[in-house]
Amino acid sequence: MKRLLITGAAGNMGMAMRQRLGHLAEIIRVSDIAPLGNIAVNEEPFTCDLADADTVMRLVEGCDGILHFGGIPSENTFASILNSNIRGLHNLYEAARRHGKPRILLASSNHTVGFYRQDQFISVDKPTKPDGLYGVSKCFGEGLARMYFHKLGQETAIVRVGACWPKPTTVRMLSIWLSFDDMASLAERVFKAPHLGCPTIWGVSNNQPKWWDNSASAYLGWIPRDSAEVYRAELERDPGIPAKDSSQAMWQGGGFVDDPIYTEPPRSPNR
Amino acid sequence: MKRLLITGAAGNMGMAMRQRLGHLAEIIRVSDIAPLGNIAVNEEPFTCDLADADTVMRLVEGCDGILHFGGIPSENTFASILNSNIRGLHNLYEAARRHGKPRILLASSNHTVGFYRQDQFISVDKPTKPDGLYGVSKCFGEGLARMYFHKLGQETAIVRVGACWPKPTTVRMLSIWLSFDDMASLAERVFKAPHLGCPTIWGVSNNQPKWWDNSASAYLGWIPRDSAEVYRAELERDPGIPAKDSSQAMWQGGGFVDDPIYTEPPRSPNR
Amino acid sequence: MKRLLITGAAGNMGMAMRQRLGHLAEIIRVSDIAPLGNIAVNEEPFTCDLADADTVMRLVEGCDGILHFGGIPSENTFASILNSNIRGLHNLYEAARRHGKPRILLASSNHTVGFYRQDQFISVDKPTKPDGLYGVSKCFGEGLARMYFHKLGQETAIVRVGACWPKPTTVRMLSIWLSFDDMASLAERVFKAPHLGCPTIWGVSNNQPKWWDNSASAYLGWIPRDSAEVYRAELERDPGIPAKDSSQAMWQGGGFVDDPIYTEPPRSPNR
Amino acid sequence: MKRLLITGAAGNMGMAMRQRLGHLAEIIRVSDIAPLGNIAVNEEPFTCDLADADTVMRLVEGCDGILHFGGIPSENTFASILNSNIRGLHNLYEAARRHGKPRILLASSNHTVGFYRQDQFISVDKPTKPDGLYGVSKCFGEGLARMYFHKLGQETAIVRVGACWPKPTTVRMLSIWLSFDDMASLAERVFKAPHLGCPTIWGVSNNQPKWWDNSASAYLGWIPRDSAEVYRAELERDPGIPAKDSSQAMWQGGGFVDDPIYTEPPRSPNR
Amino acid sequence: MKRLLITGAAGNMGMAMRQRLGHLAEIIRVSDIAPLGNIAVNEEPFTCDLADADTVMRLVEGCDGILHFGGIPSENTFASILNSNIRGLHNLYEAARRHGKPRILLASSNHTVGFYRQDQFISVDKPTKPDGLYGVSKCFGEGLARMYFHKLGQETAIVRVGACWPKPTTVRMLSIWLSFDDMASLAERVFKAPHLGCPTIWGVSNNQPKWWDNSASAYLGWIPRDSAEVYRAELERDPGIPAKDSSQAMWQGGGFVDDPIYTEPPRSPNR
Amino acid sequence: MKRLLITGAAGNMGMAMRQRLGHLAEIIRVSDIAPLGNIAVNEEPFTCDLADADTVMRLVEGCDGILHFGGIPSENTFASILNSNIRGLHNLYEAARRHGKPRILLASSNHTVGFYRQDQFISVDKPTKPDGLYGVSKCFGEGLARMYFHKLGQETAIVRVGACWPKPTTVRMLSIWLSFDDMASLAERVFKAPHLGCPTIWGVSNNQPKWWDNSASAYLGWIPRDSAEVYRAELERDPGIPAKDSSQAMWQGGGFVDDPIYTEPPRSPNR
Repeated sequence: MKRLLITGAAGNMGMAMRQRLGHLAEIIRVSDIAPLGNIAVNEEPFTCDLADADTVMRLVEGCDGILHFGGIPSENTFASILNSNIRGLHNLYEAARRHGKPRILLASSNHTVGFYRQDQFISVDKPTKPDGLYGVSKCFGEGLARMYFHKLGQETAIVRVGACWPKPTTVRMLSIWLSFDDMASLAERVFKAPHLGCPTIWGVSNNQPKWWDNSASAYLGWIPRDSAEVYRAELERDPGIPAKDSSQAMWQGGGFVDDPIYTEPPRSPNR
Repeated sequence: MKRLLITGAAGNMGMAMRQRLGHLAEIIRVSDIAPLGNIAVNEEPFTCDLADADTVMRLVEGCDGILHFGGIPSENTFASILNSNIRGLHNLYEAARRHGKPRILLASSNHTVGFYRQDQFISVDKPTKPDGLYGVSKCFGEGLARMYFHKLGQETAIVRVGACWPKPTTVRMLSIWLSFDDMASLAERVFKAPHLGCPTIWGVSNNQPKWWDNSASAYLGWIPRDSAEVYRAELERDPGIPAKDSSQAMWQGGGFVDDPIYTEPPRSPNR
Repeated sequence: MKRLLITGAAGNMGMAMRQRLGHLAEIIRVSDIAPLGNIAVNEEPFTCDLADADTVMRLVEGCDGILHFGGIPSENTFASILNSNIRGLHNLYEAARRHGKPRILLASSNHTVGFYRQDQFISVDKPTKPDGLYGVSKCFGEGLARMYFHKLGQETAIVRVGACWPKPTTVRMLSIWLSFDDMASLAERVFKAPHLGCPTIWGVSNNQPKWWDNSASAYLGWIPRDSAEVYRAELERDPGIPAKDSSQAMWQGGGFVDDPIYTEPPRSPNR
Repeated sequence: MKRLLITGAAGNMGMAMRQRLGHLAEIIRVSDIAPLGNIAVNEEPFTCDLADADTVMRLVEGCDGILHFGGIPSENTFASILNSNIRGLHNLYEAARRHGKPRILLASSNHTVGFYRQDQFISVDKPTKPDGLYGVSKCFGEGLARMYFHKLGQETAIVRVGACWPKPTTVRMLSIWLSFDDMASLAERVFKAPHLGCPTIWGVSNNQPKWWDNSASAYLGWIPRDSAEVYRAELERDPGIPAKDSSQAMWQGGGFVDDPIYTEPPRSPNR
Repeated sequence: MKRLLITGAAGNMGMAMRQRLGHLAEIIRVSDIAPLGNIAVNEEPFTCDLADADTVMRLVEGCDGILHFGGIPSENTFASILNSNIRGLHNLYEAARRHGKPRILLASSNHTVGFYRQDQFISVDKPTKPDGLYGVSKCFGEGLARMYFHKLGQETAIVRVGACWPKPTTVRMLSIWLSFDDMASLAERVFKAPHLGCPTIWGVSNNQPKWWDNSASAYLGWIPRDSAEVYRAELERDPGIPAKDSSQAMWQGGGFVDDPIYTEPPRSPNR
Repeated sequence: MKRLLITGAAGNMGMAMRQRLGHLAEIIRVSDIAPLGNIAVNEEPFTCDLADADTVMRLVEGCDGILHFGGIPSENTFASILNSNIRGLHNLYEAARRHGKPRILLASSNHTVGFYRQDQFISVDKPTKPDGLYGVSKCFGEGLARMYFHKLGQETAIVRVGACWPKPTTVRMLSIWLSFDDMASLAERVFKAPHLGCPTIWGVSNNQPKWWDNSASAYLGWIPRDSAEVYRAELERDPGIPAKDSSQAMWQGGGFVDDPIYTEPPRSPNR
């Protein structure tokens, strides 16, 4: 690729992908509403509020691929989510439509299915059961991506990210952790695939406890290599095995299912 | 019921239901942004823009049940759809949450699955394939309803309306027509069911060609009685059998799949 | 047939079938542990405790078909259920094995699946979820019947009876009522089928709300004709629509799911 | 249609359809290798051996639709079946390809699935289990039809005919009988459908015992009206209920499963 | 755990688990009706006939977890099986109910599905097909466990043990062998899981030929490590590859499907 | 085995198997219509045209197993395919029937399902979608094999070969390559299995991108060891990643879907 756009580039996943995916394109256009940190030699910084359609239009211009991590990353007020994850996403797809339909990797979330129980093993074809407004906004996003694909041929890899952090920090994450390296190898597969289509992919490492069946996207040949299992002993000690009837032990969405409908921004958003 | 709210009461379905469902409650609160026409003796008019959260909060107060037909009914600009079908729907559910969680019948649409072919027979559990921004907004609505159910116990009957008009007007409608009487009998079932849950229901009469499997909501005991078949000869003559490779003959969403992404309001919206 | 055996012939279903199925055989051997009432001209009374293997051996001798309604019909102590429904059933199958393997219609129960929700539509192939010791004993019975079929060729129609009474008496029964006439027509199909095999059949009339998919036994050609729907208005008034979160409204097994594990016989067993 | 071709027009089904489907086209081209009987005013006779490619090419020229009943109708030697059902069918599709791809209704057979048991309820998507060379030739035909559809857009309705006779003549036919009137109404649906595609359809009347699930072609709106059930009493007397372990009672293909691999033409082919 | 109960502790699996699972609790209460062998320092012997309810009540008191291997381990008379596997199991669950509902690992058996063919790949959700009275008693046990879970919240891991021996001894066991180490690692997962629920698990090592799909319990993260394949050459020589049409080669239950219904205890029970 | 027959022994796969499977039998009868190359000491050459029934009869005589690779290996004229793949296969099965029903490994093809998209993950139970006359002839062959199994007990392993060459030569082959060594280990499993039945098996190595689910034949215990992935970098450079909308990138059948219906033999057949 000539130019790859990474939105949400100042965030957790964005930063990690900047370090790992620089080789995918000659130029990495890095974008966020927050400060972008150190700019590497092949990086092109672009500050942008996703809710601003005109800026997003310019943001996408000239890009051959998009890693879309931007937007609100957890439960919040409807106003915030509407602005970033709904209006913002529409802006992105409209910009892509005008600028050659570059392939998009879209970060969706396990919170689209947070109300499945942890003892269920589900494929991406099961109906969504979002666990909050954040999850609902991701359902919107998945629908939007599929519509642009069927109507206009815009390809998107919808990645339902589990928990993408340097390492897992709870026992529940032993099931849903996605390592940065596995996220990066997935991105490589997505941009190299001869024909991508519009698959939905569970973004999860090769952990031992499994909730999600990725056979529907087996054609991509992505094989995650890391496993959260090496952190098990540590996490079972601290923070410890959650109580049998707690949301952390019952629901795929974990603590998100307990979040209220926020009418004011939460102090410390739930992971 | 003491008071039943009908939104979109000035529209096509709203008008028809006002004539048929007056017996469901002592008072029918009828609401629209457009003029509400003649007000019956047990009707209580309430003009309301769904995008106005405060007004919607008052609109719902005191209601024991809601028939939600309000919002933009076909493909339109993102701005219009965002306002009415996304922000408006969130306003409605927030108002319901504050006012005793009255049972809701939510008009969703066949355009959530418009990109299935007409030769496919699908259950409500198949992944959505919306055919435009309107369909995407209905995917948002279905996700929102399910989230309020799982998180808060708010019951909703999600009805994917086929084509609810006095009579079918195209050959495609021989498969998707929903008569006003069948819509009314469905509403009766929804408000009488001991336990409703949050089912997704194909809103379609007992037509002969069938695309949709309603067995998932068989527990409601709704049996549509009308059939579009009596209009077949007439419609095959005029407007006639559509061309084999036209959208009208290929896709469940019919002409909607050909709609562009509107950036200005369409003159005459596609049915 | 020369001789048809009806066990539980003094009970509710037994009595009703004696009145309707006299034409199926020259002699109807009617058996119960309780008094058998008036004996018709072609009836042959036989008092029998199913737990007594020797008597059961003689009971079955000379019979060409068996309608097995005997045993404990609802939740009770483990001792009672063990004796009648487990030991008693084994006695019956051993007697059948020794006496020419007459075809058996075995009354199983909806309480094998009582912990499915009422908004689920299930086939006979779904795993059982019994709602009490009674239901567990019926799971035992279904397993025993299938084993005698696969190992020895003994044919059985396993009928998961809904609620077989003169008329439905609760709103829940609008979904699960089995009329006596429909039960009788099912028995006729079972004994006339060229090849029966060992099907599991939902024993339910043609009610409007449906929980159960009988397509797996469609080859028998049984079509129930009655519907509980005619009793709806009456039952919605009295005893009335059950509360939304009650077992009567939530679970297929209704009130059985609330039964304790009885350690003494219950005064008035739950229907 | 201007001209409809009926092959096998001298046979059982061909004759019956000539009487019922004359209104579908201005001219009915009737073709067989055997004498065609009385020729109606709008009929155009055309004697043809399907194995003769050149003649078949002329046979199809000028036709807007084809009802293909021609070929060997039951188990026979491989040489016969190869000539008529394999080489002959290829000739027909090649001729259709050269002459505007008229829509085809192709008579396939229940003998493509003859080794399913009679107590199985199967959809058209289950793998085939042919019960003889005849059934294998029909599997070939179904594959050929689907290939011409996917590669070239040639539409075919693949109809797995049960037993299409004036009336059922065995107890097994109570399940698989297809009345002439129902066959005719199916043909009408097939030629009137806006978009046909390449469905596989169980060709069976509305009999009470059911082995086959036609929901995959529900979009055609074909509803068979006749039922073999009215003949039950008569057939259960004569020829009588087949023995429990006979092929007539066990297998969907009935007596065909007992046919040998013929190396000489059979005297009286099995129905 | 403070105290873990192992029933059937004098048997094959019990002995092997005593050697491997001593670290799971401070005290291992070991119980059997047979002599318990050498008692380790952290073991607490408890002789018990499972059919004796009062003793079982005391047996369970004070235990935080139960490994239930007790009962009749293969085909036998109904009287024996009734006593140990039916009455005995009910005694165990009643005792658990009174004593804090300790988590239970219940040894069920592949003989619940013995009448599936060896060329079938089945999930735990398929209907049971027991191959004898022993298998039927395990169906009873699985139903009982699920009922106690749904009604009372008692958690159980139902483990359908393949063949748990030091090493496989027949070619059939190349598919169903469960090594002692894999059984032990499964037990560890079961007692460590935050939320267990009531899963059914195929108890089988990581053998190469596979009959059973364990994805339904993938959430536990159990990964068996051993494989019977290393014994293949040896077993194909002796006892040798079984005849093509023998039960050993045809049925998942192997020789059990040939067992008669025992009316006297068998001399040398079939493995 | 005493004598193993390899047909198509002069071809690509035949040659490779001759080198690898000599140990399976005392004598390897190698057969082709083309020159057979060097004859190894335990090889018995036999020149044969599969269309010649008498010769095929002698060819099979005395064989205990058959590896059938003979026939036309890619798209061609109907006449050629009819002769070799249809008439020839029938000859082979008739000869097997007369000579003790030796177990057959039948080379079918991925072109039986060529019209599935590459982003679909399919089991062997999905309906066939052949991509040409070659694929249709393989559908015929699969049907024939299943019929001989169900009717006569003739066992066959139907292997849908992906692309069996020394190494993959296109990016599409990264998904479908079958190494010679994996083909050989599959043959070993097939001839060693206690009971084979008539499975359909995807003949594909352990590649990273996966289109095909082999769980239905997991009972054979075949585990392919090679992976095409080591050739990825090389093939992505040359011949390169195919265009997004090309058949090479879209369809499982690759370029075969673009083949015309040949009326004259193609110059250079498509791989």
